[in-house]
Amino acid sequence: MLTEDLIINKFKTSFPITDISIHGIGDDAAIIPINKKESYVISKDILVENIHFRFTYNNPQSIAHKALYSNLSDIAAMGATAKYIFVGIAIPKNIPAKWINAFSKYLIRHCKHNNIIILGGDTTAAKAALFISITIIGHSRNKHLKFRYNARPGDIIAVAGNLGYAHIGLTASETKKATSTIFKAAFLFPKAKILEGKWIGQQKGINAVMDISDGLNIDLSSLCNSSKVGANINLDSIALEAEFIKACVKLNLKPLHTKLTGGEDYSLLFTINPKYIGYITQQFKLTFGYNLTLIGSITSDKSVKYFQNGIHKKLKLTDFTHFGEMNEL
Amino acid sequence: MLTEDLIINKFKTSFPITDISIHGIGDDAAIIPINKKESYVISKDILVENIHFRFTYNNPQSIAHKALYSNLSDIAAMGATAKYIFVGIAIPKNIPAKWINAFSKYLIRHCKHNNIIILGGDTTAAKAALFISITIIGHSRNKHLKFRYNARPGDIIAVAGNLGYAHIGLTASETKKATSTIFKAAFLFPKAKILEGKWIGQQKGINAVMDISDGLNIDLSSLCNSSKVGANINLDSIALEAEFIKACVKLNLKPLHTKLTGGEDYSLLFTINPKYIGYITQQFKLTFGYNLTLIGSITSDKSVKYFQNGIHKKLKLTDFTHFGEMNEL
Repeated sequence: MLTEDLIINKFKTSFPITDISIHGIGDDAAIIPINKKESYVISKDILVENIHFRFTYNNPQSIAHKALYSNLSDIAAMGATAKYIFVGIAIPKNIPAKWINAFSKYLIRHCKHNNIIILGGDTTAAKAALFISITIIGHSRNKHLKFRYNARPGDIIAVAGNLGYAHIGLTASETKKATSTIFKAAFLFPKAKILEGKWIGQQKGINAVMDISDGLNIDLSSLCNSSKVGANINLDSIALEAEFIKACVKLNLKPLHTKLTGGEDYSLLFTINPKYIGYITQQFKLTFGYNLTLIGSITSDKSVKYFQNGIHKKLKLTDFTHFGEMNEL
Repeated sequence: MLTEDLIINKFKTSFPITDISIHGIGDDAAIIPINKKESYVISKDILVENIHFRFTYNNPQSIAHKALYSNLSDIAAMGATAKYIFVGIAIPKNIPAKWINAFSKYLIRHCKHNNIIILGGDTTAAKAALFISITIIGHSRNKHLKFRYNARPGDIIAVAGNLGYAHIGLTASETKKATSTIFKAAFLFPKAKILEGKWIGQQKGINAVMDISDGLNIDLSSLCNSSKVGANINLDSIALEAEFIKACVKLNLKPLHTKLTGGEDYSLLFTINPKYIGYITQQFKLTFGYNLTLIGSITSDKSVKYFQNGIHKKLKLTDFTHFGEMNEL
């Protein structure tokens, strides 16, 4: 376990929550009550220069975008609607006013576009790296809230959105190689599934939900752990598009491995009660114009297993870490 | 205006708030509604290594203390009670697990002591400096909320707590000189006026409140600006204790200047309707065992003026900045 996870785990075990209207550490966001029917949904994400972004290829717009939309994705993954944000920034002296203006302008514009009010914040000087911390507060009716601990054996596992695209963009950016703008955009300007999350919240046939920020393998394991279940994943269901394979070959990435471990696509991962599978897949397509990918089913054996042509494959997967780690090589 | 203030100002002017149940940028904390009678009170503070603390003299306990209590002070300044925190930390690789353990343990202990639940957070690696961002959520009945924009001409200005103590501690720490433990403790383990804040919230004779984190002069100006008023300050009311003067002389600080500009004491600054002055001062003393300092009164002329022996003194004050700035010298 990473030091970072150890701290969060320590916080979690130190504050066992007994009030059922409160939901604490261990999901995409926390919940505090408004009344018996409604709650606020709160998440906090931090972005650090040279860990989550680099000035060499992230412009101010891209950094503002990632800071905002990674938080919007957390709110979407709870089935909630974002309302307010609080912005913390530590700014090194060498950052020009022009950069700050471009960053603020983009953030303000995209908050307005998403009906979010910037309600507070804290700014300070920094000696070394730029640091951004956004706290986001969303709102939801309690009956629309979705958690990652609700997956049940027999549920069908679905993904809304792409897998591995942002990782190709990241690898191309890090190695200074060209790649399709689709993958570059997926990395530099990821799209949070805001409307999908809200829609998912309203579907009673959907049990557990989370966003895929660290990669399918690690996030599915997390969903399974929270729900005390396992999963059988059919690798044949994960399409390897011609352009995706081409980009992977060029960048020396393994295509299937990239699909399973690439982070930061902010797709949504969720489990569907099999009775509702026809309705959910049809309505999703009708509402959003693209198909859900059904990748397997929830089991009761508490481990994630991969199958190809019906045969159990033991995969050696190296899970996604931010490039803080990559750079140590 | 500093770059940091420019951003916050830009955020503020971009989101004019029309809903009276919401209170945004410009106070110690923001307000979001629970119902017609209650609100959540939210604040976010960031602490950066070598700007707000140094490993050379802040131990992990002191850093955890400042991170928590600077936020608790913001909640107290609204008349509210802290309930939940969200902890964001970016941790450089060279920080030992022992440090992290001591930091977490202290934070958990002091959250429990103050009936606060750590409800979420985000931890990540960092390349350079340690960075801590805490978001705190408090609760208050609406009728007990206090704002900094409510000062009225004729109000008596009061301070609960010390002035300039933390600045002596800071200066001694920075210059590696000895000073009394009172001043060191004021700097390394500042006491937020948690109970005083809650009590102040319940007093109808108290109009405007804020905490003094950046120094009396700058914070009083901020309170006056928010309230569109001014202040006459009687310098003779600000006691220069013998030990304080001795410490200032030793550290080459001007005593009165230090009282007016020293930051991070987290005393409370508030204005009292003169009709209630006897009641408030007596009850405060009875409840907390120490006297309020009455330093002057609110005027309608929109500037802060200092008087000594009844004579208007034009002071050249250099307001407090964190040692990010000091080090540039």
